[in-house]
Amino acid sequence: MRLHDYLPSGNGYKIRLLQSFLRQPFQLLEYDIIRGETRTSAFLALNPNGKVPVLEISPTKALCESNAILYYLAQTTPYWPVDTWHQAQAMQWLNFEQYSHEPNIATLRFWRKLPSLTQWQQDNIHQKQTAGYAALAVLEQHLGSQDFLVANTLSIADIALYAYTHVASEGGFDLNRFPAVKAWLQRIADHPHYIDIHSREIA
Amino acid sequence: MRLHDYLPSGNGYKIRLLQSFLRQPFQLLEYDIIRGETRTSAFLALNPNGKVPVLEISPTKALCESNAILYYLAQTTPYWPVDTWHQAQAMQWLNFEQYSHEPNIATLRFWRKLPSLTQWQQDNIHQKQTAGYAALAVLEQHLGSQDFLVANTLSIADIALYAYTHVASEGGFDLNRFPAVKAWLQRIADHPHYIDIHSREIA
Repeated sequence: MRLHDYLPSGNGYKIRLLQSFLRQPFQLLEYDIIRGETRTSAFLALNPNGKVPVLEISPTKALCESNAILYYLAQTTPYWPVDTWHQAQAMQWLNFEQYSHEPNIATLRFWRKLPSLTQWQQDNIHQKQTAGYAALAVLEQHLGSQDFLVANTLSIADIALYAYTHVASEGGFDLNRFPAVKAWLQRIADHPHYIDIHSREIA
Repeated sequence: MRLHDYLPSGNGYKIRLLQSFLRQPFQLLEYDIIRGETRTSAFLALNPNGKVPVLEISPTKALCESNAILYYLAQTTPYWPVDTWHQAQAMQWLNFEQYSHEPNIATLRFWRKLPSLTQWQQDNIHQKQTAGYAALAVLEQHLGSQDFLVANTLSIADIALYAYTHVASEGGFDLNRFPAVKAWLQRIADHPHYIDIHSREIA
């Protein structure tokens, strides 16, 4: 299996972190999204939506969307719940991540890496800060009473939300306002096979 | 099971449409999101993220996020694939819907219903039109060679993407540019238990 990815991407890091937890080595093919390397015709043949990560499972099977890749890799492992109700809750958090968390927290972090911002981007910073803090508050409330997001066990729901939360400060978010979130981040980072976002290999 | 919903919401309609296909009557509790009825403390106790739909399964079990609710209801029905690879592809489309489709197509439709737009909303129309058309082009390309999104069988991936695609014109999108999408919409609407977005009951 080959992972088409951009190393600073939290969405790609989700996959690499799960694969390290699973002791499943990955072959990394890197693309610089800022230089448009995911907009070439070769890449668009792999993912018509032009986004990393893509997991190439075989010459005829390519899977897109980070949370779908997590779901696929986690089946029959301890990182996907067995109970139907717990599975539904994990799905709830995966959707929360893509809709209410990532578009705000990840986007502001990405914009800070750009050499300059368009007027449209500048006009959107405030709205994304507000929405990003609201998403962190939802996490804080939930994690105030449990160690992990679903069934008190580390699952792909935690991995998905860890990816951009742990680098939220790079988007200008102050995590000191969220002590339960910080404690949860530490619990994930304490995993014996933890790797950081810039790692090209499993631990 | 009680569905907390806002009738014009495509996200809520996904659930109602699946429940009609499954011959599973629902009890509808309606909220006017424009009047802030999902921001009350009673509603936030149900969903701290303040969004409909919420499926209240029992007094202690409430499930949020439309695609998580679809996933939960579709388990062990013909609308969730059996094969692991097909499940992964369905997950890919569910994530595509929440990240690349809904925030553009649904949002522009919602803004058109508002009495007036803020400057920030006005400044975002063009970007959302561009991104919404890009999402429709991804659908068009995929549906050019198959009847349904996954395994050529109607699944919750189709239901999730149907919800806001079939009313995209209400957001200003011209679906005549996408003949394969239009044919696919018709295939879904031909289901014997199809209901429209304003239906409060299964068919």
